Amino acid sequence: MEQREIGIVGAGRMGGNIARRLREVGQRVASVHDQDHALRDALAEEIGARAATSPKEVADTSDVVLTAVSDEASMEEIYREGAGLLEGGRATLFINTATIPPQVHIEVARRARLRGRESLEACLLGTVPHARAGTLYVLAAGDEQTFMRAKPLLEGISSFLRYVGAAGEAAKIKAIVNMVMDINVAGAAEGLGLGAALGIPSEVLVDALSHSAAASRALETHAKAMLDGAYGRFLTADYAAKDARIALDLALEAGAFLPLASAARGQFERMGEVGLGKEDLSAVAQLTFPGRQGGPRPR
Amino acid sequence: MEQREIGIVGAGRMGGNIARRLREVGQRVASVHDQDHALRDALAEEIGARAATSPKEVADTSDVVLTAVSDEASMEEIYREGAGLLEGGRATLFINTATIPPQVHIEVARRARLRGRESLEACLLGTVPHARAGTLYVLAAGDEQTFMRAKPLLEGISSFLRYVGAAGEAAKIKAIVNMVMDINVAGAAEGLGLGAALGIPSEVLVDALSHSAAASRALETHAKAMLDGAYGRFLTADYAAKDARIALDLALEAGAFLPLASAARGQFERMGEVGLGKEDLSAVAQLTFPGRQGGPRPR
Repeated sequence: MEQREIGIVGAGRMGGNIARRLREVGQRVASVHDQDHALRDALAEEIGARAATSPKEVADTSDVVLTAVSDEASMEEIYREGAGLLEGGRATLFINTATIPPQVHIEVARRARLRGRESLEACLLGTVPHARAGTLYVLAAGDEQTFMRAKPLLEGISSFLRYVGAAGEAAKIKAIVNMVMDINVAGAAEGLGLGAALGIPSEVLVDALSHSAAASRALETHAKAMLDGAYGRFLTADYAAKDARIALDLALEAGAFLPLASAARGQFERMGEVGLGKEDLSAVAQLTFPGRQGGPRPR
Repeated sequence: MEQREIGIVGAGRMGGNIARRLREVGQRVASVHDQDHALRDALAEEIGARAATSPKEVADTSDVVLTAVSDEASMEEIYREGAGLLEGGRATLFINTATIPPQVHIEVARRARLRGRESLEACLLGTVPHARAGTLYVLAAGDEQTFMRAKPLLEGISSFLRYVGAAGEAAKIKAIVNMVMDINVAGAAEGLGLGAALGIPSEVLVDALSHSAAASRALETHAKAMLDGAYGRFLTADYAAKDARIALDLALEAGAFLPLASAARGQFERMGEVGLGKEDLSAVAQLTFPGRQGGPRPR
């Protein structure tokens, strides 16, 4: 692999574990930024990188910047005109992994091009352990030559890597994947919640669901947490609601009618309204199990 | 296994293949009835059984009757007071596999008891190939001694058999399983339909979904049919709508709020309204793919 210096913006669980993984496969991670300075400093110290005072400083002190921020507002912030990543003096390649509307990726790519930089979207399917192990499923989009430049780095973090086309195309696929996942998670919570309301032993129900046409990764991943009411740290309900809005905005534009995606969005937005927005999306079970916070009252 | 003579009511794909399987494992299938006489006669001839002229005649000419009818109305018909299965002179054990509301199983068990017969519900998870191969996942409910009498026969058709409690309990679990399956099927159709509307290559999208947290048995089973618009013969949309109503009636009674199940029910009922009720439930893709019958108009 090329020995370029890499900068990381976003030192959360995905960004942090990508940085650890890159270092492990022999890449040089030179600098790190996160708006949460404690996160930034801890990661910088752990991997021996510079704790940059701004995104721009990351771009001043590395050749390639990988960003792993969580939403559109953070993308706007790190790429803001006049003071963001594209003002850095050194970095010429930017790889963005956020799950955000396709048009934001398109806009970042446009701004990068105007400044003689290259930007690639790299949508990540997989969880924190996949990031740590370098086994993410990565869909990349942007100019194909930009993809070729980014490829060695992306190969270091993925077990599957595919170039899917122009800027925005990977983000569309990611939006659909998260939409279907959210439907399956919210659906599993309905099945398990109804089972609880009817007094069905949970192990009997889960075994039946798992051995039937109702089986899903969502059920495998989240059933135990839903039954125990002790939720994981996979993706927050607020982010699930955000992802649902991305998909439904695309659907509206395309003239598609998606009543289950709308219902799932309603559930994740309701979680925010009842104070569960920072919980894992599997805590949607709070809305479907009798007697839980946010759920139907016991009779 | 005991050498009792078995009667089959309902010679459709499930009943027919259960009959074939029972014969293969050495059981004696003595008589068969179906309201569709062509189906009945073909099965009777194939397996060397009597083509009975009524459900009652099946109960006159066998020791154990297994029923595999498709809905509540058919159950009412074959068990109708004064002329149904319970009037038969010989059979004393009735095993019912229909996916129907729990209270119908409870009522049939009550009527059977009044006439000195035993009735068991045996809810089947699995498809026609599982029935043929004797690898169904079977949940049984009713009196435990009735279950013990039925067990040798049920072992012949299942790879997993569990007694789950009093009459109605297996039907509740089956209702939840089908509800979650229907949500996952309708959700997969939304994801694939949105992908088509956005012009995403279907093989790229299906591969991403299959390797992600959005993966499900529903997707595995139905994605190809949905993409091709050439649907299988798994379960009709009308039956999916019926199953959704069973689950949502239970939810209403239990005070559970299930917006995704309601949205799925809406989709399967809409299929009936636009003339797709007899299609496979995977044809819900007709409602979510642009330009298809029942779906959004192309822009």
